[in-house]
Amino acid sequence: MYYQVFGQMKKMLGQLDKWLESAAAFAETKKFDANLFLGFRLAPDQFAFARQVQTACDTAKLAASRLSGKEAPAHADGEQTLEELRARVRSVIAYLDGFTANDFEAAATRSVTQPRWEGKTMTGADYFIEHAVPNFFFHLAHAYAILRHNGLGIGKRDYLGPLSLRAP
Amino acid sequence: MYYQVFGQMKKMLGQLDKWLESAAAFAETKKFDANLFLGFRLAPDQFAFARQVQTACDTAKLAASRLSGKEAPAHADGEQTLEELRARVRSVIAYLDGFTANDFEAAATRSVTQPRWEGKTMTGADYFIEHAVPNFFFHLAHAYAILRHNGLGIGKRDYLGPLSLRAP
Repeated sequence: MYYQVFGQMKKMLGQLDKWLESAAAFAETKKFDANLFLGFRLAPDQFAFARQVQTACDTAKLAASRLSGKEAPAHADGEQTLEELRARVRSVIAYLDGFTANDFEAAATRSVTQPRWEGKTMTGADYFIEHAVPNFFFHLAHAYAILRHNGLGIGKRDYLGPLSLRAP
Repeated sequence: MYYQVFGQMKKMLGQLDKWLESAAAFAETKKFDANLFLGFRLAPDQFAFARQVQTACDTAKLAASRLSGKEAPAHADGEQTLEELRARVRSVIAYLDGFTANDFEAAATRSVTQPRWEGKTMTGADYFIEHAVPNFFFHLAHAYAILRHNGLGIGKRDYLGPLSLRAP
């Protein structure tokens, strides 16, 4: 199911790209600087919008890398505009596009770590379910919530994207 | 992986229960009515807090029911207090506690529908990955964001809960 869930992350990053496009159009209609969005936040001690987007991107990218062993592209976190954020999102979509189901064959039993765990590890399966998936959706939903809180007219369909519905 | 992901949902509903407990204690410290939280929202046309919690609960409950064929407990959406919301959350945790991995053996190939799809269906696998999981985390993260936006001092560890870290 790893490959399918990464496919879903890719799809939702595509939706995020559309929200960013809508945010730019909304700002133009309302005559404010669209790049103000990058600094908006829901609480003074929560990440601002730009960092929510960067972290959603990084969570998907690093999880795919750690669970496959394939190197991830580097991103410098220096985005100053919605367009630069869109480029980051599309770069991660392109990275995720390069995977096949085979790349995740050993995912469940890999040993995953990151600097803040001070030498401790998680199995690939635990890391994916307990850390990567919840964090991806956390930051994606916070990016969405910041846009909605600031007046952007997007809805649940823009969040989920098209569903694989079958005719009766 | 269905069973493992439902286990993660159960764990995160347990975290949600703790946020609700913290929200009640925060209100007492600040001397405001804790049940005001139920009506807070991030945008006038988004669900208020109570409905975010109800929908997170329902998404997990109905997904487990639809993918296993086991009947789900009914909940009336009439909660007026944080305590009643906590009882709802714990009821869904108890329901999820009753499943085993065997219950989801046929999940991927089940046919799932709901009234708003007007007769259309999704496979269990598509429904789980494209609809149930993204929606669960959407409403859970919005509940969290509404609490944070209104001053509650919870953080990422309260969101994720304890991780299955292994000693070096």
